[in-house]
Amino acid sequence: MRTVDIIQKKRDGKLLSTEEIEFLIEGYCSGEIPDYQMSAWAMAVYFNGMSAKETADLTMAMARSGDQADLTSIPGVKVDKHSTGGVGDTTTLILAPLAAAAGVPVAKMSGRGLGHTGGTVDKLEAIDGYRVELTKEQFLQQVRSIGVSVISQSGNITPADKMLYGLRDVTATVDSIPLIASSIMSKKIASGADAIVLDVKTGSGAFMKTLDDSIRLAQAMVEIGAQVGRATVAVITNMDEPLGFAIGNALEVREAVDTLQGAGPADLTELCLVLGAHMLQLGGKAASYDEARAAAGQLLASGAALGKLKELIAAQGGKPALADRPELLPAAEFQVPVPALEDGTVSHIDAEALGVTAMMLGAGRATKEDVIDLAVGIVLRKKVGDRVAAGEPIAELHMNRNEPMFTEDMTQRMRNAYTISQEAVEKAPLIYAVVTKDGVKLLQ
Amino acid sequence: MRTVDIIQKKRDGKLLSTEEIEFLIEGYCSGEIPDYQMSAWAMAVYFNGMSAKETADLTMAMARSGDQADLTSIPGVKVDKHSTGGVGDTTTLILAPLAAAAGVPVAKMSGRGLGHTGGTVDKLEAIDGYRVELTKEQFLQQVRSIGVSVISQSGNITPADKMLYGLRDVTATVDSIPLIASSIMSKKIASGADAIVLDVKTGSGAFMKTLDDSIRLAQAMVEIGAQVGRATVAVITNMDEPLGFAIGNALEVREAVDTLQGAGPADLTELCLVLGAHMLQLGGKAASYDEARAAAGQLLASGAALGKLKELIAAQGGKPALADRPELLPAAEFQVPVPALEDGTVSHIDAEALGVTAMMLGAGRATKEDVIDLAVGIVLRKKVGDRVAAGEPIAELHMNRNEPMFTEDMTQRMRNAYTISQEAVEKAPLIYAVVTKDGVKLLQ
Repeated sequence: MRTVDIIQKKRDGKLLSTEEIEFLIEGYCSGEIPDYQMSAWAMAVYFNGMSAKETADLTMAMARSGDQADLTSIPGVKVDKHSTGGVGDTTTLILAPLAAAAGVPVAKMSGRGLGHTGGTVDKLEAIDGYRVELTKEQFLQQVRSIGVSVISQSGNITPADKMLYGLRDVTATVDSIPLIASSIMSKKIASGADAIVLDVKTGSGAFMKTLDDSIRLAQAMVEIGAQVGRATVAVITNMDEPLGFAIGNALEVREAVDTLQGAGPADLTELCLVLGAHMLQLGGKAASYDEARAAAGQLLASGAALGKLKELIAAQGGKPALADRPELLPAAEFQVPVPALEDGTVSHIDAEALGVTAMMLGAGRATKEDVIDLAVGIVLRKKVGDRVAAGEPIAELHMNRNEPMFTEDMTQRMRNAYTISQEAVEKAPLIYAVVTKDGVKLLQ
Repeated sequence: MRTVDIIQKKRDGKLLSTEEIEFLIEGYCSGEIPDYQMSAWAMAVYFNGMSAKETADLTMAMARSGDQADLTSIPGVKVDKHSTGGVGDTTTLILAPLAAAAGVPVAKMSGRGLGHTGGTVDKLEAIDGYRVELTKEQFLQQVRSIGVSVISQSGNITPADKMLYGLRDVTATVDSIPLIASSIMSKKIASGADAIVLDVKTGSGAFMKTLDDSIRLAQAMVEIGAQVGRATVAVITNMDEPLGFAIGNALEVREAVDTLQGAGPADLTELCLVLGAHMLQLGGKAASYDEARAAAGQLLASGAALGKLKELIAAQGGKPALADRPELLPAAEFQVPVPALEDGTVSHIDAEALGVTAMMLGAGRATKEDVIDLAVGIVLRKKVGDRVAAGEPIAELHMNRNEPMFTEDMTQRMRNAYTISQEAVEKAPLIYAVVTKDGVKLLQ
């Protein structure tokens, strides 16, 4: 088998065999196939795409390229969830205890944030004492005993994906649905999930800007799941504005606690109920979506999900009292309101710009080496569709620096991220569609 | 300027600016742009092509990437010719003296052979004493004094093309008309030509298998010439069988001498008259193609072209007597006829297979380090359209090894390269079309 022949085959629009895809991925990982051949292949894939079988083969080859979590010692259907990235997305902190409270085991490995997006592991570190690193045995044991653990992704998970993603990033081959789908699914499969709920963000603040592209990506991932025997459901959700109000680590933990207490932002609560219902249904805890949805609502209302968060925090060394008294979380020294300059209705909030602003405040990392400030961030006061009067705060900066020029700059960035319209604003729906192996169900 | 943005622009079907193409080529040569970005770009070019202006910009960027011959001290229009590669193609040894005899200066740098194709420099070395390496000043002085010099390409000509070609070869990005066209033209332009005659081979033995592709390649090269001010004419010629009868270095020199004496193979003679006429016309030595063609015929008939070959040989240190007595050339010890096994008509000769056979006989190199045997090779006795009887030789092996198994193997290879048909065979035309800046003239 020669790499150049495999590239040519894909270039000419032919289908690659399982063996050819394995040859590529194994050769790339071992260093036998150089970057310049993989990038030419990736560009050929950009133009000619991949079949469902090729995409599944690529996913499995990447999943097998490094460590694979073995969750078989945990009884039940282990359900994982993944979001395609957003700003202020606190769903894991809510959904992991919620699903566990329903009896669906959640053995979750999460990542840290980079650039304008936050990471669940950083948020967990805002909880005093919480240990994000457990041994493999501690991790499995905890899921067996209390049904949930959330730790930092460690070891050598999908190195092929890491290499290929880094290469795609500098060769203009990121925007390929089968490559994006296999990248995401390979990590979920290597993490040991039996079933997967995907939150595919769509809109100006998301990687997928259009509903059509988001549905195509969702279909590709659901199809991979079907091909490799992992039941997968994807929910297409709005990312024309950030989710919830909080952006920043401790601020988002607080918002997650609020939501588990039944007092969270409407959009975040609704999204968690939808994603949670699918997790319960895939985990075999409900016979229908409606039943699952009702059960999820009940777990929030009864405090069972909040109770599970406390168990989780306690099991990993943190102080569960914080779930009742979120004022124990680290807080920033200065709260600076950002007043609107004009009357009108908020018509758009640039989620990515807010993510960058939060990063500049210290809540995120520009490079992997940066140290973050867990207390700082942004709290939105107005969201899309809200009326605002000149002088009224659109948001609040939570800062640990009191330097007028810096504050002025951050304030300006916040104002630039908001579009205030004099026209009536129609708010986009939160949930656009649900994609399962049976097809696409549009909810608009 | 970021390389990834340039790749993406081409991926998205947009046009690259002159500056962007220069940035790519200069960065690639200096090592700032890695192979993996160039190969992704080349694959994007494979799919989206390049405009005439982009192709010309790429050509000039590559031409400028290394040494450039300065022929301005030679008066007149310096005309170069290039063939897209064939087997048994001895045209340079005939056309260089022919054009020079008409007063068109020919300052030619040629290459060595590799694989199944021969190189002019190897053929010249079959001439005892001929020096293929001259200093730059000796080279220019010789063209000024006798109108012609043919030397080995030396120095650092178009390193960007060498690097890019090597990369394309292993990334399935060779088959791109604009990349092939710019590769060929960049070398001709760096070699200092004012005008260029191209022999674009088409057919089973050529790189371009179809007439359409050959015309597209010819058009791309003629268009580059027009864009960069080098008058260029391309002739599309048949490569469904080797040109002439001889394959092998001394054998081809002898055939060139025969042709200059008016006793060469009909196809080789005709091709040289056509290409030579275009050289004379571009060189300003004839007012029309018909006039140029008549002049070229006269130069052969009068012995003027042969006389110029003798001058060329003498000026570069060889023995010109050889041009009258080709038996002075090195000859192989054994001449082994290859008898046909059946009656019929030759319907096809696999030129590439014959090139490989000649290489195995020792006439060519499998790797750059191989030493070649100047005397050995193949002489065809039958060509496409010729009747053959069982037992009659289709060809003759010129060998310096007398090993029955080797001879048997070579004989078998020769027979396999010939297709003998029981049907009537229609011989394809030698010249299919002429492509100039005014358009395509089909001659079939």
